[in-house]
Amino acid sequence: MNKGELMKVLEAVRAGKASPAEAMERLKHMPFEDLGFAKVDHHRALRQGFAEVVFGKGKTPGQVAEIVRAMLRAREGRHNILITRADKKIYAVVKRVNGKEARGAKFYPLSGVITIERTRETAGKGTILVVSAGTSDIPVAEEAVLTARMLGNPVEHLYDVGVAGIHRLLDHRMELGEARVIICVAGMEGALPSVVGGLVGVPVIAVPTSTGYGASFGGVAALLGMLNSCASNVTVVNIDNGFGAGCVASCINRI
Amino acid sequence: MNKGELMKVLEAVRAGKASPAEAMERLKHMPFEDLGFAKVDHHRALRQGFAEVVFGKGKTPGQVAEIVRAMLRAREGRHNILITRADKKIYAVVKRVNGKEARGAKFYPLSGVITIERTRETAGKGTILVVSAGTSDIPVAEEAVLTARMLGNPVEHLYDVGVAGIHRLLDHRMELGEARVIICVAGMEGALPSVVGGLVGVPVIAVPTSTGYGASFGGVAALLGMLNSCASNVTVVNIDNGFGAGCVASCINRI
Amino acid sequence: MNKGELMKVLEAVRAGKASPAEAMERLKHMPFEDLGFAKVDHHRALRQGFAEVVFGKGKTPGQVAEIVRAMLRAREGRHNILITRADKKIYAVVKRVNGKEARGAKFYPLSGVITIERTRETAGKGTILVVSAGTSDIPVAEEAVLTARMLGNPVEHLYDVGVAGIHRLLDHRMELGEARVIICVAGMEGALPSVVGGLVGVPVIAVPTSTGYGASFGGVAALLGMLNSCASNVTVVNIDNGFGAGCVASCINRI
Amino acid sequence: MNKGELMKVLEAVRAGKASPAEAMERLKHMPFEDLGFAKVDHHRALRQGFAEVVFGKGKTPGQVAEIVRAMLRAREGRHNILITRADKKIYAVVKRVNGKEARGAKFYPLSGVITIERTRETAGKGTILVVSAGTSDIPVAEEAVLTARMLGNPVEHLYDVGVAGIHRLLDHRMELGEARVIICVAGMEGALPSVVGGLVGVPVIAVPTSTGYGASFGGVAALLGMLNSCASNVTVVNIDNGFGAGCVASCINRI
Amino acid sequence: MNKGELMKVLEAVRAGKASPAEAMERLKHMPFEDLGFAKVDHHRALRQGFAEVVFGKGKTPGQVAEIVRAMLRAREGRHNILITRADKKIYAVVKRVNGKEARGAKFYPLSGVITIERTRETAGKGTILVVSAGTSDIPVAEEAVLTARMLGNPVEHLYDVGVAGIHRLLDHRMELGEARVIICVAGMEGALPSVVGGLVGVPVIAVPTSTGYGASFGGVAALLGMLNSCASNVTVVNIDNGFGAGCVASCINRI
Amino acid sequence: MNKGELMKVLEAVRAGKASPAEAMERLKHMPFEDLGFAKVDHHRALRQGFAEVVFGKGKTPGQVAEIVRAMLRAREGRHNILITRADKKIYAVVKRVNGKEARGAKFYPLSGVITIERTRETAGKGTILVVSAGTSDIPVAEEAVLTARMLGNPVEHLYDVGVAGIHRLLDHRMELGEARVIICVAGMEGALPSVVGGLVGVPVIAVPTSTGYGASFGGVAALLGMLNSCASNVTVVNIDNGFGAGCVASCINRI
Amino acid sequence: MNKGELMKVLEAVRAGKASPAEAMERLKHMPFEDLGFAKVDHHRALRQGFAEVVFGKGKTPGQVAEIVRAMLRAREGRHNILITRADKKIYAVVKRVNGKEARGAKFYPLSGVITIERTRETAGKGTILVVSAGTSDIPVAEEAVLTARMLGNPVEHLYDVGVAGIHRLLDHRMELGEARVIICVAGMEGALPSVVGGLVGVPVIAVPTSTGYGASFGGVAALLGMLNSCASNVTVVNIDNGFGAGCVASCINRI
Amino acid sequence: MNKGELMKVLEAVRAGKASPAEAMERLKHMPFEDLGFAKVDHHRALRQGFAEVVFGKGKTPGQVAEIVRAMLRAREGRHNILITRADKKIYAVVKRVNGKEARGAKFYPLSGVITIERTRETAGKGTILVVSAGTSDIPVAEEAVLTARMLGNPVEHLYDVGVAGIHRLLDHRMELGEARVIICVAGMEGALPSVVGGLVGVPVIAVPTSTGYGASFGGVAALLGMLNSCASNVTVVNIDNGFGAGCVASCINRI
Repeated sequence: MNKGELMKVLEAVRAGKASPAEAMERLKHMPFEDLGFAKVDHHRALRQGFAEVVFGKGKTPGQVAEIVRAMLRAREGRHNILITRADKKIYAVVKRVNGKEARGAKFYPLSGVITIERTRETAGKGTILVVSAGTSDIPVAEEAVLTARMLGNPVEHLYDVGVAGIHRLLDHRMELGEARVIICVAGMEGALPSVVGGLVGVPVIAVPTSTGYGASFGGVAALLGMLNSCASNVTVVNIDNGFGAGCVASCINRI
Repeated sequence: MNKGELMKVLEAVRAGKASPAEAMERLKHMPFEDLGFAKVDHHRALRQGFAEVVFGKGKTPGQVAEIVRAMLRAREGRHNILITRADKKIYAVVKRVNGKEARGAKFYPLSGVITIERTRETAGKGTILVVSAGTSDIPVAEEAVLTARMLGNPVEHLYDVGVAGIHRLLDHRMELGEARVIICVAGMEGALPSVVGGLVGVPVIAVPTSTGYGASFGGVAALLGMLNSCASNVTVVNIDNGFGAGCVASCINRI
Repeated sequence: MNKGELMKVLEAVRAGKASPAEAMERLKHMPFEDLGFAKVDHHRALRQGFAEVVFGKGKTPGQVAEIVRAMLRAREGRHNILITRADKKIYAVVKRVNGKEARGAKFYPLSGVITIERTRETAGKGTILVVSAGTSDIPVAEEAVLTARMLGNPVEHLYDVGVAGIHRLLDHRMELGEARVIICVAGMEGALPSVVGGLVGVPVIAVPTSTGYGASFGGVAALLGMLNSCASNVTVVNIDNGFGAGCVASCINRI
Repeated sequence: MNKGELMKVLEAVRAGKASPAEAMERLKHMPFEDLGFAKVDHHRALRQGFAEVVFGKGKTPGQVAEIVRAMLRAREGRHNILITRADKKIYAVVKRVNGKEARGAKFYPLSGVITIERTRETAGKGTILVVSAGTSDIPVAEEAVLTARMLGNPVEHLYDVGVAGIHRLLDHRMELGEARVIICVAGMEGALPSVVGGLVGVPVIAVPTSTGYGASFGGVAALLGMLNSCASNVTVVNIDNGFGAGCVASCINRI
Repeated sequence: MNKGELMKVLEAVRAGKASPAEAMERLKHMPFEDLGFAKVDHHRALRQGFAEVVFGKGKTPGQVAEIVRAMLRAREGRHNILITRADKKIYAVVKRVNGKEARGAKFYPLSGVITIERTRETAGKGTILVVSAGTSDIPVAEEAVLTARMLGNPVEHLYDVGVAGIHRLLDHRMELGEARVIICVAGMEGALPSVVGGLVGVPVIAVPTSTGYGASFGGVAALLGMLNSCASNVTVVNIDNGFGAGCVASCINRI
Repeated sequence: MNKGELMKVLEAVRAGKASPAEAMERLKHMPFEDLGFAKVDHHRALRQGFAEVVFGKGKTPGQVAEIVRAMLRAREGRHNILITRADKKIYAVVKRVNGKEARGAKFYPLSGVITIERTRETAGKGTILVVSAGTSDIPVAEEAVLTARMLGNPVEHLYDVGVAGIHRLLDHRMELGEARVIICVAGMEGALPSVVGGLVGVPVIAVPTSTGYGASFGGVAALLGMLNSCASNVTVVNIDNGFGAGCVASCINRI
Repeated sequence: MNKGELMKVLEAVRAGKASPAEAMERLKHMPFEDLGFAKVDHHRALRQGFAEVVFGKGKTPGQVAEIVRAMLRAREGRHNILITRADKKIYAVVKRVNGKEARGAKFYPLSGVITIERTRETAGKGTILVVSAGTSDIPVAEEAVLTARMLGNPVEHLYDVGVAGIHRLLDHRMELGEARVIICVAGMEGALPSVVGGLVGVPVIAVPTSTGYGASFGGVAALLGMLNSCASNVTVVNIDNGFGAGCVASCINRI
Repeated sequence: MNKGELMKVLEAVRAGKASPAEAMERLKHMPFEDLGFAKVDHHRALRQGFAEVVFGKGKTPGQVAEIVRAMLRAREGRHNILITRADKKIYAVVKRVNGKEARGAKFYPLSGVITIERTRETAGKGTILVVSAGTSDIPVAEEAVLTARMLGNPVEHLYDVGVAGIHRLLDHRMELGEARVIICVAGMEGALPSVVGGLVGVPVIAVPTSTGYGASFGGVAALLGMLNSCASNVTVVNIDNGFGAGCVASCINRI
């Protein structure tokens, strides 16, 4: 039932064609959620960050292009477009979508992210800092960086500051102190968020990565380490979920 | 700061171009871990929230009382005192600590929390809402409520709104919409944060609880459910970690 | 917003005191779920089976008695009352609740179930048969039997027919063939549902139990066995969840 | 020992060639299960639903074709034929099996199902509704849809109604209310069956899928979520087992 | 249907009161398994070893006594009686069962086994050797020893020969060489069966025990070690299942 | 040190060239295990069964051929040769090894086994029966069949007798009753050994297979089911370890 | 067979009473490991560290006292005596063992260790430093400290230097730098060994503890963290195995 | 060092009592993380062993070559270069790096290690012995051998001495006795370190390998076995971590 249908019922009441009791009977059987004006928009959170997102994995290049075309056509404002878990083939097809904007698409092969930047407006109120432990954590860190950036946040990053060489991290205490939200990406023992969390007073989003081998169990060791962090400002997202960390950080940074 | 820079400062002192005090001023801003004036205070984060915390579990009543006595004596300001995972015996002894404040200690048997409220100043900028799914999740929810409150935040709660009776949750959409940070406490399938996360645009801290039996595996089912949440504004803390959720929420709310 | 409030709005429209547009504006901000007539009743499923349920675990005897008292007072019809995971103390207090009905409460110590039978009406269209493998599975089987019975179903049971003595099961093929729904309760290797499922054409609800030791891992072995059943009419509920099996079986039997 | 042999023994008794005691001695050593008339037919359950099933995985195209050929030749009635976990190569060979019916085979690449529809008779008494959460759950959902349909049931489906956008599900409350059995397919946190189960009074068959990454552990997170569902009308089948869900739903729908 | 009923049918055929076809019709509907003479006796395996077994755990002393009384009364021969997972209270009651035999019952507190030896006949053709690694494995080893002995086998044992002091094992190579079947009981790393298996040519039954702490995970480490044994004459039973090992060893020794 | 060297020492003592004390000094430093006559032969167990074994996996075709060549050259008797986990390429090369025997090598593609039969002598005293549940368990079953046969045992097999169609198994009760050792191969719920174990009095070696999907977890469900078997004559080997089962069965059959 | 027996054989050869061949025949059947001079002494490692160890858990106070009495009587030198996993009752009985030394026994209730110091000789060549993260890790740390000390090593300790307050650890860099071996005890995320390992060049023995709750899974989180340590001088022992860490550290320190 | 002490140094400089150089000398020994001259060098541990290490996995051949080029150019001394987890392609490119040294690079295909030996100086004080159980453990063992060797240690190895043929190990007791540190590499049940640990008094580094199948769970069985070793001189590193074992062994051997 949409707005129009409800209006018809109300007009009928006014016109005396339906008694209030009859109107009520009819309203009773309507799916109220569908009134239009009350519709929950589950994309709101993301869109407020000025971006629309496509999860590329499991979609054909053609399907992704189709979605991007629709996004570019939509009139609701110039949002950035973020395609995650994509590849070269998807990129090739996205670039050929009609219009200047699509031609400006950028592909980041490490993280498999494609971005189409359409606005530079920022929604975040401070800087989001993405910190990562080892070289092999960079793909996930990059996904977090690009997500947060497309959602309208100033983003800085600090790579290769693992805890076994603690001085590398301590050398950058100033950057840590200036961030409003920190994303901490680490595989193996996943100890970085605890150390970083202890050095700052802002929220730390921990992202375990599936790097490592043997008893890292595809990121489980890092995940458990982070869930058991002894720093009280650390929360955790799924293994390899750089995108989710970027979203949450952006969500915090917009408050 | 490298060797050369330090040498320059020292030469300036020798040459009388800088007084020792001036030299010290310059050194002060250097990342010198151990100079004393630069000492990292790892309690800062919590204290900024106007509370000091004692983890009661594994401590004797006498030890807890000792710590509380020291906290009450300290001159650094009137912080709230929060004792988690405590019991009746600890409460009895804490109440007998010298001074009027200790006599005002309150004990919450469900969550095992003791609070000594010494200030009503608020640090948080909005309301933290604690939502929980079933009756058996209330102890953990209460720990989160009291932690966030002692850390200086206005806190509301919404209990018994599990997803199998979705209307109970939808009835409270307004409260959900007014919170600045939401803590979601749920055991069993841990589905509540996904639904709540989809209804709001603010950060949702998910706390799995160890309630349930059989294949709930002491909270693992809920934990995995939350880590795999399809809502992009959800992060997770350890099973039963109401305290941690309260800390993180407070930390976000202070930004 | 309840029925009355909605009626007022509609009356105002009829009376011309409010235009349809104004009415719509007001409706827009109402929690539609709460209209009263549209309210989802999450207890409906259970109540249709003529029973109300209290989960006794974690509640004090006093709390359970309070709930039972309220149920007995309610005017909505004479439903059976089922209290699961209860104990002797709860039973003693429940029996003392005012009125003849409470005095008729029965306690089943094996399964920890208390029943107050207030109606013999049956909702189920056929017989539910509860089959169990070993002696130690009987408590869970009994919970299933009593749940299904209180929900208004004719229930039969067949205990101690484990697969290592297959003839014991085959001796009862006739009973198996006469059931409309079968609940299969088994611990250890959890093989019973596969064999039973192969012998009948009706739905089989498998309930793993936490009996056994060592590599039974508290029922995980049986749970996995049942999930991997090679019979195509088998579904599974949580470990030790006799109550859930009884509910689902009743739900199927009412169709 | 078959029917003929038993008859011979009985004839001998009648003819006085064997005493009852001698007959008994001979019967004693016979494998009674093999009498022919007592033979349990383990395919009965499925066939009653008017279909025969081939599990394609691990079979060569030639082997599948051989089986299909035999099924088409069999005189027992015109059952539908369902081949699951198949691929293009199998499809190509199946289509070339002699006869018009094989040429009508259809292939569904998403779910890897091949169907040969030979009858439109329905066995199910109501509609089976297949609900799925995300786009990546569709292959499993489709397997369930096609299985239930080939087994002679009217089937509807409702895709992409995950719990993080709860309104999408609520918009379809009417369809939910009209189904006689519901199959709920979901990966990630597996929360959908709990919400759906709370909205309806009919049995809900939950199917966890192996979609997701990291801590979804190939569907384990969804599986555990479903086993711990707080809705009491939910049962669970194996991860990705759309076929099994279709069978059970059909089995319930035939009652 | 019992022997008598079948006889009636056959007599009717002889007397011409029933045609063979009519007899067949009636036989068709009988549960053949229940003919009495065809009844599978699932206790046969154990009884051939001259013992009857009661699993004491979860039974009241009174129930165990009842079963023992029935066993002593039975006329089928003088079998040994073995009660596993029992305790002092059960022993006290068993000893008071009527008759001289019960008074001769022996209780082994380490393993919780009660034995009533009624025959010294041996069924086993060689010696069963029970080898165990550490002191804490002795309770499980003793259960194996007593089970095998009650089942009519000559049994020897060799305790405290763990692999970290390999010479202790090698000192007993002769005993190893003389056994017909070996049971190997070990916790912790569960390495003993591999070493023993490499030294002998006879079957080795490995029993993991739940001793140890931390990463022994209640016997899982030992269980996995044994399943992965590089000796090709090793098979495994459940954690702490000394009884099972004794049964299997006896079963092999009787061949 | 070999037999010859020891003899020299003893001769020197006799000849008076060395005092007993000097002889002892020399013996003290010898690796006694290496005396030749005391040498443990870890291949003895297998060889007594008239076969030598090569584990093909991870070896190049050339390496396997080299080993086979050496085996064929060895003078110690004409043993069968068994190569497990091999493939077509290995087979091609093995066939080209010099000599008539190699040309007689046979390759079984399902199980990846290559056999070179050089003797038909049997070591086993009875028949080993290999029973398997589903079609996909046949490769593992075949490995067990060929292993037991190459080790000198009469072997029968019974495939496709899963528990969901229990009559198929019961039809073959006679074969079950005639075996001296039974190997039971099953994936999915792994229930077959429990049922078979209950029907016979001989040892049952259970082999879980990694067939299945989802919650079968690569054979873990079947493994746990078998370890928890309620039949007391069942022992278990590693997942997919048809070879090991064949060895153990042969080892039992030779007793 | 001991030295004396061998000598007799050799004398017989010299005396011409036995031919070398006869001598050889007799040697052939002897358990060479038992020659006395070749006997492996598996306690050597520990004893070289000047201590004898009793694992108290699962032993009665009387049994422990018996063992201690035997140790005190033994003439082989004055070794320290270490009893782990003991309690007050054991201590009371041990103190009453005859002799002055037993009266000097000390009990450490936190770790459950009893020590009887009989020698102050040191075997270790440098200092062993035991570092622990949280207060609740101290019992395990204390077990490590006392073990290493009783084995003859100078031991220092540094408690409560968890990674979330990294400055606390860095304040003690000098002590870290002076140790020859470091034992790192930590629960929760188990990150301490990685940080410590990065700060020093000596071996770090990591001991996970079972402290924590929820997703710490009894120490598994810490264990996995340590196994995945990105510092290359870290090795790991079992959860809560302070004793083992003390042994290994001592073993390294003696080199 | 605190503020006061620093002030004193600065005053002394001003007063001419200390030259800037002397002041610097004093500052040098202070724990100043960032002074440059005090900078912690987290590569020190490895470099002291005369090697620099590149982890090849996940790097392109070009990237590895780039790093090697930089290492060869560096003036700090002629260290060995070790590239782990490399392949043929990386080797081809590394060999073409300018200069004679690169041309001397060696590639070990089994372990994927590339070495460039530039110095034969040894840092280790004794021999490191690498012992491995089965043929399939050799790749990991080789990684350990080459790592320890490149780090400046004399290394011996002993392959194929698994515990199921214990004599093979005992034959080499002398080599075991001569090592200063032992690395034990084993898959499957991981029992070798326990046996070896019991035979020697030196530290044993256990490395589980991912060889095996089924219940070896990619090395978990071996890992758990080693963590539960009953020998008290055994510590453990991650699955397949031959490199880590080589580092730790070298670190111990340099003490």
